[in-house]
Amino acid sequence: MNDGYNVAVVGATGAVGTKLIEMLEQTNLPLKNVKLLASKRSAGRKLLFKGEGLFVEELVPESFDDIDIAIFSAGGSISQKFAPEAVKRGAVVVDNTSQFRMVDDVPLVVPEVNKEALKKHQGIIANPNCSTIQMMVALEPIKKLAGIGRVIVSTYQAVSGAGAKAIEEVKQQSREILDGKLPEDLTTGILPVASDKKHYPLAFNALAQIDEFADKDYTKEEWKMVNETKKIMEDDQIKVSATCVRIPVITGHSESIYIETEKEVSVADLRACLEDAPGVVLEDDPSQQIYPQAMNSVGKKDTFVGRIRQDLDVTNGYHMWVVSDNLLKGAAWNSVQIAESLHELDLVKI
Amino acid sequence: MNDGYNVAVVGATGAVGTKLIEMLEQTNLPLKNVKLLASKRSAGRKLLFKGEGLFVEELVPESFDDIDIAIFSAGGSISQKFAPEAVKRGAVVVDNTSQFRMVDDVPLVVPEVNKEALKKHQGIIANPNCSTIQMMVALEPIKKLAGIGRVIVSTYQAVSGAGAKAIEEVKQQSREILDGKLPEDLTTGILPVASDKKHYPLAFNALAQIDEFADKDYTKEEWKMVNETKKIMEDDQIKVSATCVRIPVITGHSESIYIETEKEVSVADLRACLEDAPGVVLEDDPSQQIYPQAMNSVGKKDTFVGRIRQDLDVTNGYHMWVVSDNLLKGAAWNSVQIAESLHELDLVKI
Repeated sequence: MNDGYNVAVVGATGAVGTKLIEMLEQTNLPLKNVKLLASKRSAGRKLLFKGEGLFVEELVPESFDDIDIAIFSAGGSISQKFAPEAVKRGAVVVDNTSQFRMVDDVPLVVPEVNKEALKKHQGIIANPNCSTIQMMVALEPIKKLAGIGRVIVSTYQAVSGAGAKAIEEVKQQSREILDGKLPEDLTTGILPVASDKKHYPLAFNALAQIDEFADKDYTKEEWKMVNETKKIMEDDQIKVSATCVRIPVITGHSESIYIETEKEVSVADLRACLEDAPGVVLEDDPSQQIYPQAMNSVGKKDTFVGRIRQDLDVTNGYHMWVVSDNLLKGAAWNSVQIAESLHELDLVKI
Repeated sequence: MNDGYNVAVVGATGAVGTKLIEMLEQTNLPLKNVKLLASKRSAGRKLLFKGEGLFVEELVPESFDDIDIAIFSAGGSISQKFAPEAVKRGAVVVDNTSQFRMVDDVPLVVPEVNKEALKKHQGIIANPNCSTIQMMVALEPIKKLAGIGRVIVSTYQAVSGAGAKAIEEVKQQSREILDGKLPEDLTTGILPVASDKKHYPLAFNALAQIDEFADKDYTKEEWKMVNETKKIMEDDQIKVSATCVRIPVITGHSESIYIETEKEVSVADLRACLEDAPGVVLEDDPSQQIYPQAMNSVGKKDTFVGRIRQDLDVTNGYHMWVVSDNLLKGAAWNSVQIAESLHELDLVKI
């Protein structure tokens, strides 16, 4: 028995960071102290944790001297620099960025799917991409029931995945359009990808680009869904292709997913297995117009699944609509669940 | 040679009707007179046609006495009642509603694809569903090049497809959300389907329901894409499944389309054949972040195709992103093109 963990949140003032604090307030993980870390610019700010004011401290290597679990969500370059420092000082790192996800000895974990992979950790555990996580939660029970040979996914992703500035930008653009501004006069500069050459309006638009373009004209976001799925499901044979699209929703990713199973099953079988699956809420009653909605997912930890239908021609093909809060299950909640799993499996040395 | 057609627009004051008037201003079809028809409520209003004020007249059976071509866009029940009246009085009807689309001797026409089907018309020609039309324009050249065995489509459809009141509703909801109203306090009543039991907010949301639910838990909109594709392409063997989703875009439908061709081709071959295809504008240069966008399609008659990629596992599988103005190519422009084709093929008796 330990008397609780010292947990650090790196990037505490960001869009995901503030959700991490909320999730730590709700976790069953025994906590001794919570330390909030951010850049020098944000240091000195006071944030509430369980009703108590905590000062945000500047992130330095020594920040991790007394830390058991460090949850990172401050961008890839910060993780690259400071995660090894945290490990060196004895912390286990749960990293929300893409920095270490595809590194061989770094477990990439969705607790409902591959919690056991944590046992091989070498200090760093990666939290998968938001759009991958919710797909994994929905597909794992189906994989257990019938095997999955193939996945084709088209996403409808929310803007909060691109950070707080992107949210402000799309709100600003929305106001401008409602006030009658022309498309060419809208404020742009962040979306679709802050670091990329061109920027386009997202308000009342749909942008088929998330992250930069990469190999074979797929974007990095699309490659994440492909490669992370294979790693998390520990199955290199599973066929995955993705089209990732940003739409003007603040929070809540939606996904239109087509799967081909190895074994033919009925839609009733699929519904039954999803109804019992961890982390899944089945919302699938067309007669009552019940189906998952991004807006309804906000603030909830579950992944919502509905619109389950058999393909009209392929007998082992199925379509579904999968929705989750991208800041919670897609990021903060999955990270805290990983910390809970580390505790449950006794994988953090104190 | 004739000295021009007398053309009636039924539903002249609606979202599509006003676009029909614009398209008739731009058409090469020889016009003698244009008659604007609508419900009693709208009769007496004056609309501009080529700078001239035209009075909207009340729709009655006798409205068609001197009409050669009548373009209907006033809802299925109006078409059901008045299209046969127009035909009886010697007019050829181009119907924008779903009323006659699947009737055997009614040609369902996208001029770039199956103009020849007009030759068998018995007085009524149906304009396909907006989401089907743009898909057909993009797929026909590929079908000619390599054959198409299978289509899986997920749509990102604009709200103007649901009419002028739906546009106002989503604008109102957007303002309310930007002003801080909670989801449960938003104004609803029209979307997703005015005639259905429940109504949900669409602003900053995505609704996986367009039209009512029907057979096998697919919506009527999804069935339209399936059945109309088979009819237009004159191929009952083509496998089509659809997931239709409304997103907060005012005008411009986007579609994530996966196809399997009969013959394996390269992405370069696909781009080349689309570049030369009628009604298609290829916008596909990832290195310059060039891909179709709903916002850019507004007011244009073309169908924009981009994000063309080979599937990562299936060698005859391809993904693409297809965008078009749902009020123009998806409705008004396709209807006027049908009228132009009727003239070209000399299929209207004067």
